[in-house]
Amino acid sequence: MPIPQLNIGDFFIWKSLTGGADASDWWEPLFGANKAFDPEVDFIVCSNVLGSCYGTTGPISINPQTNHIYGASFPQITIRDMVNLQAALVQALEIQRIKLVVGGSLGGMQVLEWGLLYPDLVEAMAPIAVSGRHSAWCIALSEAQRQAIYADPNWQLGNYTLDKQPSQGLAVARMMAMSTYRSWGSFENRFGRQQYLNEFAISSYLQHQGQKFIQRFDANTYITLTHAMDSHDIARGRGSFADVLSNVKKSTLVVAIDSDILYPPHEQQELATLISNSKFALAKSLHGHDAFLIDMSELNDLIVNFRRELAPYRRLGGGTEPNQ
Amino acid sequence: MPIPQLNIGDFFIWKSLTGGADASDWWEPLFGANKAFDPEVDFIVCSNVLGSCYGTTGPISINPQTNHIYGASFPQITIRDMVNLQAALVQALEIQRIKLVVGGSLGGMQVLEWGLLYPDLVEAMAPIAVSGRHSAWCIALSEAQRQAIYADPNWQLGNYTLDKQPSQGLAVARMMAMSTYRSWGSFENRFGRQQYLNEFAISSYLQHQGQKFIQRFDANTYITLTHAMDSHDIARGRGSFADVLSNVKKSTLVVAIDSDILYPPHEQQELATLISNSKFALAKSLHGHDAFLIDMSELNDLIVNFRRELAPYRRLGGGTEPNQ
Repeated sequence: MPIPQLNIGDFFIWKSLTGGADASDWWEPLFGANKAFDPEVDFIVCSNVLGSCYGTTGPISINPQTNHIYGASFPQITIRDMVNLQAALVQALEIQRIKLVVGGSLGGMQVLEWGLLYPDLVEAMAPIAVSGRHSAWCIALSEAQRQAIYADPNWQLGNYTLDKQPSQGLAVARMMAMSTYRSWGSFENRFGRQQYLNEFAISSYLQHQGQKFIQRFDANTYITLTHAMDSHDIARGRGSFADVLSNVKKSTLVVAIDSDILYPPHEQQELATLISNSKFALAKSLHGHDAFLIDMSELNDLIVNFRRELAPYRRLGGGTEPNQ
Repeated sequence: MPIPQLNIGDFFIWKSLTGGADASDWWEPLFGANKAFDPEVDFIVCSNVLGSCYGTTGPISINPQTNHIYGASFPQITIRDMVNLQAALVQALEIQRIKLVVGGSLGGMQVLEWGLLYPDLVEAMAPIAVSGRHSAWCIALSEAQRQAIYADPNWQLGNYTLDKQPSQGLAVARMMAMSTYRSWGSFENRFGRQQYLNEFAISSYLQHQGQKFIQRFDANTYITLTHAMDSHDIARGRGSFADVLSNVKKSTLVVAIDSDILYPPHEQQELATLISNSKFALAKSLHGHDAFLIDMSELNDLIVNFRRELAPYRRLGGGTEPNQ
């Protein structure tokens, strides 16, 4: 049996349509022989995140002290809290080293924190479509979304019951978010100015996305996780931003998406410039930030090549080279 | 007295802080001797728009047939309706020709429609930070904003009374809009990750903008004007987009802003490519779409130079050249 490899592919899971921590579902094109991740050879771990509503403790979990859900009383958490919980999982699995931590967006924030909190465990990292600290721009767009939830009369300062959710506000937040996850070209290409029954197709699409989302998500969870993203700053309490990154010695592949308006490529370029042992790759896609969940072929190739550089003899395509 | 010149500087007036049609207020740096518009020499007209809540007939006007405000019964209007109303004003003023129509955003839509609806009146035009047809991207961002208003329980399908406005929803719409009017760099430069009392400065700023806006704006008006913008398509009912623009023979200065995410520069580039007698200028600014209301020095120079090319002997700076 090969020595276990652990790839933390812990993504911002509310962006995968089925939710949950099954990366082989929403990252399916990256899984298989000759692909970025080969389940026949790699030991792949993708966990949910702290604060989520998909199984890990979060605002809809029962607080054992009250026997009610945490709701608005769930504490404010950070990306570091998420990573510390994942580290407890890694320890429980008795994993001694992690060959590659990889993730996009919120997942990419975790990747960077893994490299800083557990440098002795991590051998390489691949942050995708993310920055080293959440920008004022991203905070602004998150804040407007949170305000849409707060404006819903069902919000009740977060003290709603699960059968009376601030669903309208949550749907609006999702419509705003969905737009910023995509791009001018993505919407133009798919919808343009098409109309049905006197309504633009893009408008119907967004409304549908909002309605779908409220079937599977929770408002306090949305607030908790967006606040956690806003807290993201790899330099917090550690010194200057440049110094913190220049002390990262891990092999790093930084992937940017050219049409990403949320985390524009210059943010990843900055990461790659400051992390000494790093490569920068600009993935071309129409689809904006979400491209890492849509245009996966180029992303797969980037990770395959990066892994090949890390371990030239990695088994690919049923070859006979030793895995180590 | 010089022959009257008419510059339609009819901007998307809800974007000027003081509202109203006083362009010399929100475009102050463009007014004066040696500037884009010289009130001593130019006859400058800036009108409000149809559908607005700043004096022109709109949803908060009294419907003479009912003696109540139009509210939700105000008809859906287009940019062409706005321009036709302006043309009635021009006729009432007995203006025979318009040397230059100029405007940004919604104002730029009017500029393009002026050139197409009244080519015999217009000599030159300068559309700024605008496209020839509203993109799916812009429609999406507008739709999410409208949905924020619809989600407010005071909305009542638009049949609210003016003392019980859907203000919370309107404030959320404004917060979303304000973000998209700016840019990554604009917010980063001004706010970064500054915090006061455990809240990010950018969050407080947006909330303040939302609260300020609801003091001076009306929800049905917001719905009416954003729908009018979504209707914008210079080709509607006129043939192909390329043919319509290639039939525009007016001298045209098309101004793009490099950091504009709402109307990205390739949209203005397309206008300039299709309009034969045109010049394209890319204004550099951190401030995104709103730059035409913030970074006005470069815009002033562009218009000054364009006007000089149109009329080499235009009087500038108290010179003695004839105005005509």
